[in-house]
Amino acid sequence: MTNDQLSSALPETDRTRHRRLREQGSLDRAQLDAILEAGFICHVGVVIDGTPMVVPTVYGSDGRNLYFHGSVASRSLLASPGAAVCVTVTHVDGLVLARSVFEHGVNYRSAMVHGVPRLVADPDEKWAGLRCLTEHATPGQWAYARQPNRKELAATTLLALSLEEASVKIRTGGPDDGEGPDAALGNWAGVLPLAATWGAPEPDPRLPEGVEPPQHIVNRSNTRAS
Amino acid sequence: MTNDQLSSALPETDRTRHRRLREQGSLDRAQLDAILEAGFICHVGVVIDGTPMVVPTVYGSDGRNLYFHGSVASRSLLASPGAAVCVTVTHVDGLVLARSVFEHGVNYRSAMVHGVPRLVADPDEKWAGLRCLTEHATPGQWAYARQPNRKELAATTLLALSLEEASVKIRTGGPDDGEGPDAALGNWAGVLPLAATWGAPEPDPRLPEGVEPPQHIVNRSNTRAS
Repeated sequence: MTNDQLSSALPETDRTRHRRLREQGSLDRAQLDAILEAGFICHVGVVIDGTPMVVPTVYGSDGRNLYFHGSVASRSLLASPGAAVCVTVTHVDGLVLARSVFEHGVNYRSAMVHGVPRLVADPDEKWAGLRCLTEHATPGQWAYARQPNRKELAATTLLALSLEEASVKIRTGGPDDGEGPDAALGNWAGVLPLAATWGAPEPDPRLPEGVEPPQHIVNRSNTRAS
Repeated sequence: MTNDQLSSALPETDRTRHRRLREQGSLDRAQLDAILEAGFICHVGVVIDGTPMVVPTVYGSDGRNLYFHGSVASRSLLASPGAAVCVTVTHVDGLVLARSVFEHGVNYRSAMVHGVPRLVADPDEKWAGLRCLTEHATPGQWAYARQPNRKELAATTLLALSLEEASVKIRTGGPDDGEGPDAALGNWAGVLPLAATWGAPEPDPRLPEGVEPPQHIVNRSNTRAS
């Protein structure tokens, strides 16, 4: 399954049409994939007894589906199959510091996926989905760690959410009040960037002496995370 | 209004009781305040026509209320006052890399606030709430930038969400399979930490030469963000 099988533009639906900040919105498929690729934590929104619940969880994406653990939202999702969710992935890139408070903002990349998640029952898809999720969070880890056994697979509830209905919002660049009357105030304006980076691996104190972290973990240290 | 006026334990309600990972859940007031203090982006969950929508936005907290812009969720919140929201703030602290894939996890701190947000109509509270929101994202910026004028205040919709119904989930420490049979596998296990840090300020290209960033921005560079 490759991205080529999906059109490059995401379909516009009533939920994905951007009403407020149209200039920041996008239905571009490549931007969606890039935002999902850059992260591993999403916020899943579900409705429970009419009220919303927003839960952070790990996800993986294969370009067609977003996979996440069903246990996260078990109260609603597993009790009421067919319930819609909204999954949002956000990367914060910096604060936009304008001349006036009113023009302050945030540089960010955010993707929002809507749909009814599907319980992954097929053993092959479940295996592939869990590998996708694991590799998405930590590339190289699926082959390195002990893979799930039959009992663990049975104990794992995996959900798949189609990426068909999704949208993207991105803000980049400096403040917008550099050419208005506030430019005459003479105060500083610009962006204070924010970036998440991986630190040095911290070994489990219960490890026997001499066990070194694998190369795919060592290589990740001091690299940017999103 | 100080935190002293609130009890140190948050009330347990049906929505804030932790069902799945009880050992990670907490209703501790100080932990809630610390998590909210450490961040400035939340995910607001609202229900629109029966389906959930999860939107990232900037927030501020004064220990009693969480303030955020009403425009974020205008489609539902302003059209249907009285609608419940769920606001979630999450800090990701690292990947928990266990001996087995099944035991992998994430170290994180997350706060979830439930309630019906209130439109801030009182001009004094609106002013204080906007200052709280601005100072929360960038301490020192309210006094440095031009503060809102009457027209800008009128154009700003501010919502306040009481912190009365809230809960916290935290995971810290290494993997849990160091004393089980998988310890004999001999592979590395531990935590790969993740941290967000502020970069060097990037001046707006339209700034005249010689305008230096203020000290509260300079001081923030190379410090941890959450």
